[in-house]
Amino acid sequence: MPFMPPTDSMFLLAETREHPMHVGGLQLFELPEGAGPEWTRETIEQFRSGGVSDLFRRRPKEPVGVLGNAWWTTEGSVDMDYHIRHSAVPQPGRIRELLQLTSRWHGSLLDRHRPLWETHLVEGLQDGRIAVYSKVHHSMVDGVSAIRLMRRSLSEDPDDRDCVPPWALAPRPRSTDVERSGGLDPLSLVRGGAAVAGDVAGLLPVSLKIARDVVRDGDITLPRAPKTILNGPVGGARRFAAQSWEIERIKRVAKSSATTVNDVVLAMVSGALRTYLLEQHALPEDPMTAMVPVSLSLRAGDDTKTGNATGAIVVNLATDRESGPTRLEEIAYSSRKAKKILRDLSPTQILALSALQMLPLAASPVPGFVRYTHPPFNVVVSNVPGPDRQMYFNGARLDGMYPTSIVLDGQAVNITLCSRDQYLDFGIIGCRRSVPHLQRLLLHLETSLGELEQAWG
Amino acid sequence: MPFMPPTDSMFLLAETREHPMHVGGLQLFELPEGAGPEWTRETIEQFRSGGVSDLFRRRPKEPVGVLGNAWWTTEGSVDMDYHIRHSAVPQPGRIRELLQLTSRWHGSLLDRHRPLWETHLVEGLQDGRIAVYSKVHHSMVDGVSAIRLMRRSLSEDPDDRDCVPPWALAPRPRSTDVERSGGLDPLSLVRGGAAVAGDVAGLLPVSLKIARDVVRDGDITLPRAPKTILNGPVGGARRFAAQSWEIERIKRVAKSSATTVNDVVLAMVSGALRTYLLEQHALPEDPMTAMVPVSLSLRAGDDTKTGNATGAIVVNLATDRESGPTRLEEIAYSSRKAKKILRDLSPTQILALSALQMLPLAASPVPGFVRYTHPPFNVVVSNVPGPDRQMYFNGARLDGMYPTSIVLDGQAVNITLCSRDQYLDFGIIGCRRSVPHLQRLLLHLETSLGELEQAWG
Repeated sequence: MPFMPPTDSMFLLAETREHPMHVGGLQLFELPEGAGPEWTRETIEQFRSGGVSDLFRRRPKEPVGVLGNAWWTTEGSVDMDYHIRHSAVPQPGRIRELLQLTSRWHGSLLDRHRPLWETHLVEGLQDGRIAVYSKVHHSMVDGVSAIRLMRRSLSEDPDDRDCVPPWALAPRPRSTDVERSGGLDPLSLVRGGAAVAGDVAGLLPVSLKIARDVVRDGDITLPRAPKTILNGPVGGARRFAAQSWEIERIKRVAKSSATTVNDVVLAMVSGALRTYLLEQHALPEDPMTAMVPVSLSLRAGDDTKTGNATGAIVVNLATDRESGPTRLEEIAYSSRKAKKILRDLSPTQILALSALQMLPLAASPVPGFVRYTHPPFNVVVSNVPGPDRQMYFNGARLDGMYPTSIVLDGQAVNITLCSRDQYLDFGIIGCRRSVPHLQRLLLHLETSLGELEQAWG
Repeated sequence: MPFMPPTDSMFLLAETREHPMHVGGLQLFELPEGAGPEWTRETIEQFRSGGVSDLFRRRPKEPVGVLGNAWWTTEGSVDMDYHIRHSAVPQPGRIRELLQLTSRWHGSLLDRHRPLWETHLVEGLQDGRIAVYSKVHHSMVDGVSAIRLMRRSLSEDPDDRDCVPPWALAPRPRSTDVERSGGLDPLSLVRGGAAVAGDVAGLLPVSLKIARDVVRDGDITLPRAPKTILNGPVGGARRFAAQSWEIERIKRVAKSSATTVNDVVLAMVSGALRTYLLEQHALPEDPMTAMVPVSLSLRAGDDTKTGNATGAIVVNLATDRESGPTRLEEIAYSSRKAKKILRDLSPTQILALSALQMLPLAASPVPGFVRYTHPPFNVVVSNVPGPDRQMYFNGARLDGMYPTSIVLDGQAVNITLCSRDQYLDFGIIGCRRSVPHLQRLLLHLETSLGELEQAWG
């Protein structure tokens, strides 16, 4: 019976009905040519009668244990009808109705008496596409690994009919298994793009010690984020918004402005948040900050490939500036500075610094705590590499791959994007209560990009 | 700010992800003549723009409090898009797919940051009917009151277009408000049909004292229920099964056999459970027992009208007998005996006895407890009075009204039925893990009734 390392079990321990600890994603597919409405049902039947890898058979041995769920057990017979679900979008079958369903699904807890994953195959979209919504508990798979599994289940060949779904893939070593085998390791703090930043409670003493060593020697100024409506306690209900942007548009702005794709993405987010908070009469005077997971590969000066994110920087979003171009400049400056500091550190120091920046989040599971403290940053913006070309699943064309991440007390919005062929697919998940009209961020992201294009397009 | 009596807050305190404490129901409607597919959407829009009564604006003031949720607060602005949901049954749109959706919906927790209710309007059934699934937390409304609200929202007149949904009805005093205002009261033990029997923890000392006084004077033998697969710990996932039977068929058997409608219902349940457990190789040697909420009105010798259930008897289901007619005889005998005892008691003594019979359930929220004790009874069978004639909602004809109740550790199946016009609508909710193939009970209920009809039809 495999022991569950603290880095897994903490996600089970920290989970409440207010913040479920699963990650997920919404995929869109165009059916293969000539496929009829029976395609979905046949695919579901195939899935249900097909295999399941050991990873997706794992469940906590003591689902109701109060002292942690320290052991995994393997489910002999998986109830596939339960895990693989047939669903339908109500009339009129727009993306809007699909996003409403996704919001509901992402807000409900997984059953701990079973392997911690679910997949919905969704029919009823008016344009004939089908959607796949999946969720998996962060204690089983982190966000980056989940997207890797998705990629592995797809094929570049539209005629390939041997694709198997992610839960049926033959196992490969998990990306961070090597580092994690040693038990408490600051690396785990930022595992999975640090999208889940509230998971540091158990590691606090270790990371504190290392962080002290780093900071003693450096001149690192930690930015102080203002309090905003994005940084209060969260409820259990979610709202999910998703949209794709052409990478080419973003690259063009990055090139003209001598910044990076990630800088332009952050500038889009900055402009969108600024407009959104102005509408809500809730824009803080001080500039907001974003926590951005970065790859260790940036040590080689290459940050176009994201790789597996294993560090985190905090970037000034310059939301106090009215002009989009000015915001982009400040973001790029702040980001360069943060990366320069990282570049001068050893990998261990990078991890320790990243951990230090997230320390205040450690107390976020304490009810009421978030009301009295400044957040360590205002929002997490995470960029996860997806497939760099057009992909297919048994002939169905992948047409969107929107990550659905985790919100926490104090971090009521999470923006995770996934690159796909010529697109960046944005998935924005938020607390439905504290972040009203979340979907307006999509409009504002476009407006914000448009403003940058006017200046530098 | 209204104080939340312990009888309300205990349902919040006792709730876990394994046993959500909401009750609900699934209704079926035939659309009004000439209504098109836009009916559902228009109705949803009406609902969303309509009013909400104070009861349905209530939410716990401290949703994440660990020391109980002792105060209600009233939500000023209810997020109607959240509470009123548009949903669709996937292809091929049979009742089977609808029941699968209902199982999912009933297994997920309500968001405590909002008023504790949700309603789904469901389209996509192949026969053109629409379904309504509703759930409401037991701390807000008990099962009997919930069905009363449903009835009040309906009209006998197919041309009436002034129906308003249950959450918009003008308030009436709750059936048990008078009794409950005094604080700890054994009556609350069996409130709501005692369908939720695990809620006695907080009332244990009081009921113990009263129960001692009753038992000292009587010669009451408490039946000892065998352990069965229905009486183990439960997981979070549910399975829901529902079907209607003509009351006339049941009445005919009751008349010929000189028993009651409730006796015949219990004999159907007995035969169905016996066959089901035989299939699972899990039939216990000793006869199983059912807990049946009964009305105080039976003191007047009238048990055809159920009234608001305020007492409970435990009946021998005689599942050790092979012959259906023999089972019915034993059930009727056991039921008569239990009612005779009740009839000789004062109302307070009735309540105390009912409480005593449920005492062992008090410890059921303690994890692992159910594994080592005998259950106080094997299954709850509850009969709730619905409308006694054909009802309509703004011209849509009510065609089914299936209660969805609560399962608990040690009580993995709950059978609640609702009378409606010429029918008895059975709603069977079970733990998906410990009670496989729950829907087979529907087949066996019919077979069981058929056997009784052959003997006495």
